[in-house]
Amino acid sequence: MLERLRWKRLADHLRRNGSAALLVTHLPDVRYLCGFTGSSAALAIVVGPRGLRGRLFTDGRYRDQAASEVTGASVTITRGSPLPAAAKWLAAAGAVRCDVDAAHTSIAAQKQIVKILKGTHSPCRLRAVVSPVARLREVKDDIEQERLAAAARLGCELYDGMLTFIEPGMTEVEVAAELEYRARKAGAEGMSFETIVASGTRSSMPHARATANRIEAGALLTLDFGIMLDGYCSDMTRTLQVGQGTSRVRQRRQREVFEAVLAAQEAAVASVRHGVTAEAVDTAARNSLKAAGLAKWFTHSTGHGLGLEIHEGPRIAAKQTEPLCAGMVITIEPGVYLTGEFGVRIEDTVRVTEEGCEILTPAYKGWLEL
Amino acid sequence: MLERLRWKRLADHLRRNGSAALLVTHLPDVRYLCGFTGSSAALAIVVGPRGLRGRLFTDGRYRDQAASEVTGASVTITRGSPLPAAAKWLAAAGAVRCDVDAAHTSIAAQKQIVKILKGTHSPCRLRAVVSPVARLREVKDDIEQERLAAAARLGCELYDGMLTFIEPGMTEVEVAAELEYRARKAGAEGMSFETIVASGTRSSMPHARATANRIEAGALLTLDFGIMLDGYCSDMTRTLQVGQGTSRVRQRRQREVFEAVLAAQEAAVASVRHGVTAEAVDTAARNSLKAAGLAKWFTHSTGHGLGLEIHEGPRIAAKQTEPLCAGMVITIEPGVYLTGEFGVRIEDTVRVTEEGCEILTPAYKGWLEL
Repeated sequence: MLERLRWKRLADHLRRNGSAALLVTHLPDVRYLCGFTGSSAALAIVVGPRGLRGRLFTDGRYRDQAASEVTGASVTITRGSPLPAAAKWLAAAGAVRCDVDAAHTSIAAQKQIVKILKGTHSPCRLRAVVSPVARLREVKDDIEQERLAAAARLGCELYDGMLTFIEPGMTEVEVAAELEYRARKAGAEGMSFETIVASGTRSSMPHARATANRIEAGALLTLDFGIMLDGYCSDMTRTLQVGQGTSRVRQRRQREVFEAVLAAQEAAVASVRHGVTAEAVDTAARNSLKAAGLAKWFTHSTGHGLGLEIHEGPRIAAKQTEPLCAGMVITIEPGVYLTGEFGVRIEDTVRVTEEGCEILTPAYKGWLEL
Repeated sequence: MLERLRWKRLADHLRRNGSAALLVTHLPDVRYLCGFTGSSAALAIVVGPRGLRGRLFTDGRYRDQAASEVTGASVTITRGSPLPAAAKWLAAAGAVRCDVDAAHTSIAAQKQIVKILKGTHSPCRLRAVVSPVARLREVKDDIEQERLAAAARLGCELYDGMLTFIEPGMTEVEVAAELEYRARKAGAEGMSFETIVASGTRSSMPHARATANRIEAGALLTLDFGIMLDGYCSDMTRTLQVGQGTSRVRQRRQREVFEAVLAAQEAAVASVRHGVTAEAVDTAARNSLKAAGLAKWFTHSTGHGLGLEIHEGPRIAAKQTEPLCAGMVITIEPGVYLTGEFGVRIEDTVRVTEEGCEILTPAYKGWLEL
């Protein structure tokens, strides 16, 4: 049922763009359309007068899995790589043109497909397009919104649980290991990206992975992590102070920067609404930090969509003039990074609605000293 | 020092192929050449009369990390995506032709680069090639061999430790969670792929991820996992019987198939040597299973190279006629999958030597009832 709605939206999109066929090779797109979760697949789709016809190609390792998972498409088990078999099937189906995703089709794959089409004397021509499936996936349907909310909720529960675990003197890796263990025990399939646990001066590196460094008393700790639940990603960041240090000056400075980042994050969240551009949300965060004299230390974009993948459209950044739509699920995560000193980032995942947005990660985000 | 040797081998390769410049965007290739581990990078390399000149482009999130990690190349921090900046730099450097990796450059990236080169009125033409860096990486240098051995050693220690943990009645996910937790505590950065814990009939799915299914007494359990240590992957698989079941017939059958797979695995390992083709190793495993009447259930290839990535060249499969070289590190992992019944896979990671190979995963692999 679910897939049927997605296929219908896809059919509309393909017809509008004059597509005769589509070859889907990006695995999250394949999963989105037919439910298959294996690591090797090509989904060939032909646009017919009565709708779309899809066939999934995968190799022998996934025979049973494909049989139990795939809906909305027939299945062919291939010897070796599924891509050539999918291309041959499209040629035999009489497609005169076939779209491929320009962002996820390599030059080598393109050459391989063209060669196969030529070999079958098919008139089918390849056309590289912005993936129609990626565009569909930006707006989440009901079941996706539920799954994203469930993943975000579990993320919050795990975060709350860690607050009584984290102590000065622990290593960053110990924190990451415990968090990941609890996530697994709670039913997560795994983490949606490499867990970031960055303490002290390392918190000034936006993407610092956990190391064997010990967390000093009075230092800031940035915890940025995501789990995978039922295929969907969570993503949240909190920054907190672990214990009390000796330098009051430093702690006052940490607190000041923290409050500025929190204000910027809340300003950006408050600006989210159906119809507003992604750029406007980015600007809301940046203007707030500008007022605090900290904008130049906010060195990345404000957020991104997430779903089956941790990074999906839309990008919440400058020059992104497309309006947000109700049903999009995005992160809002401004940060300030003072090289060699410390950094602060606060991130929520929110669901865009007609009137504003719903915060899917309601864990406490104000100033906190453990 | 290390990078210098790699750059020298790369320079030889590029000169032989008449390359004037190379644009490296596949992140493991970037890491291999200059040590950078961030998630956004483009490494531009110009072939000059006195050697190669490299410049790494990354964005503001990685300013500190690039400064501390990168060797052998200069660094430029970009606003936004690093790729356009790298292309502009190559044009300004006067390169007349630039090679890109056909397997890891998307059609969209290719278009973007071509457009930028045109915009600068550069005579530079793009050429899609089989990645020279991927080819270099197939033969591991000394430090890589040490790191792969260390990762494999830790994998074995973790496996041995799990033998006293696994019991009938546990869920597959509990086993995976414990293993991953111990890996993290022991210093691993994470897992090199989604841990496979497949019990009972699920063991007949070669790539079954861990589920909430309980491990029944007398069932076979396939454990296929890898850790990341110092950037390098481990990979090993063991199949064992958990407790005693009630069906003697089934257990006899399990044991028979197990011994056939073990014999095939040992035959393949025994065939590995510098100069032997990958195909010959695959055939050794397949012929052994053929003698046992089980070859048709061996539905995947015999193995693959590994290093910074879990899947690298060479492929150990039919039609792979290139000879193995001393210094390659590959897996040997035949399996037999009886749909609806059970499956057996046994996998070692081995280092190819002049005389044969060294098994890097010496954990016990004979028949075992826990």
